[in-house]
Amino acid sequence: MNKRITVEKKVLSENDRLAAEIRRKLSEKRILALNLVSSPGSGKTSLLEKTLKALNSELNMALIAGDVQTENDADRLKKAGGKIVRPIVTGGACHLDAKMITGVLEELDLDEVDILFIENVGNLVCPSSYDLGEDMKVVLISTTEGDDKPLKYPSMFRRSSVLVINKTDLLGLSDFDIEQVKNNARMINADLIVIELSCLKETGLETWYEWLRERTAAKKGR
Amino acid sequence: MNKRITVEKKVLSENDRLAAEIRRKLSEKRILALNLVSSPGSGKTSLLEKTLKALNSELNMALIAGDVQTENDADRLKKAGGKIVRPIVTGGACHLDAKMITGVLEELDLDEVDILFIENVGNLVCPSSYDLGEDMKVVLISTTEGDDKPLKYPSMFRRSSVLVINKTDLLGLSDFDIEQVKNNARMINADLIVIELSCLKETGLETWYEWLRERTAAKKGR
Repeated sequence: MNKRITVEKKVLSENDRLAAEIRRKLSEKRILALNLVSSPGSGKTSLLEKTLKALNSELNMALIAGDVQTENDADRLKKAGGKIVRPIVTGGACHLDAKMITGVLEELDLDEVDILFIENVGNLVCPSSYDLGEDMKVVLISTTEGDDKPLKYPSMFRRSSVLVINKTDLLGLSDFDIEQVKNNARMINADLIVIELSCLKETGLETWYEWLRERTAAKKGR
Repeated sequence: MNKRITVEKKVLSENDRLAAEIRRKLSEKRILALNLVSSPGSGKTSLLEKTLKALNSELNMALIAGDVQTENDADRLKKAGGKIVRPIVTGGACHLDAKMITGVLEELDLDEVDILFIENVGNLVCPSSYDLGEDMKVVLISTTEGDDKPLKYPSMFRRSSVLVINKTDLLGLSDFDIEQVKNNARMINADLIVIELSCLKETGLETWYEWLRERTAAKKGR
């Protein structure tokens, strides 16, 4: 498998080069770029829908929605009021890569954008290896997935800056222990910021919005 | 990326060759081999725990538990009464492959085994491309993941023979529509056998057990 590993390394170093270019370009424009990663069904699209509805009047948000085969997520985000929404259909690939993002960014007018959300493919493994030029990765977990996930998929939790625990309305209905998941996550990454919320019941969202406001302001140097 | 695609094709064709060998070996011994695939947290390990407890006295079950970094799942299955349990830690890889299975099978005494369960890495994308020599793939989805998953990850649902819908005890607590998920899954794969159950509340499990009994008997030619 040595040849495969060599090719994989080349792919990753080319990816890192493109990601650095994206990071430079977004930084020049003082855009906060967040790469949202999670298992399928943890609620990335739902969180972005709520965020669009809540913050559309105060922040300019651009969204890139990655999907394996459909444009379902991008369609949902447009319906939720997204003004700048672009789908990326990976055609079977299990993650977004920097080249895909570069292609989309070329078409976008970034001058007025405050935040760029990149919704990655639902997958807790592969997207952790591909830098997309984001400022931070935000990893979502839902309360129905099992509190051992940070230990089982450590790379993703190690490389993320924020952990959003979604579906807190379902706490108590399974054996998911929210303190345990936080302990497990902090064993992997002591600096992880943790935000607990329920998109469905709209609880805890204000903490997320406030964090977005602060990070956007910091990026703008205000 | 052409070189990458060429290497990937070689890897897959070598995988197919090894998978065919595994299939032949397991078929000679009349072992039913099931490859369990799903998102992280859909309940593959929980379903296997229940199955071990319920059927341990009537069927000889061997289990291979694939995980990215830990042996947590294998440990759970041993505790649940698994007599033949082997972990595979992929070391970061996002799926099991036939070579990993070949390595484990060499160490196992398969003479008395009726069913071999292979619990794949939690990932709805990559494991769909890697034949492990199984008779069938069983794909799990939980009722909290969103009913559009079959459309978004069609390859996995197309290549599976059985769809287990887990966590039916949480139906009605989100906007997940079980009829919709079944319709979506059957649009992708009209022949999919659907089994609805809740591991936590232990409902619907008898249908799964009965299906296992029937398939095992068919495999033995009884």
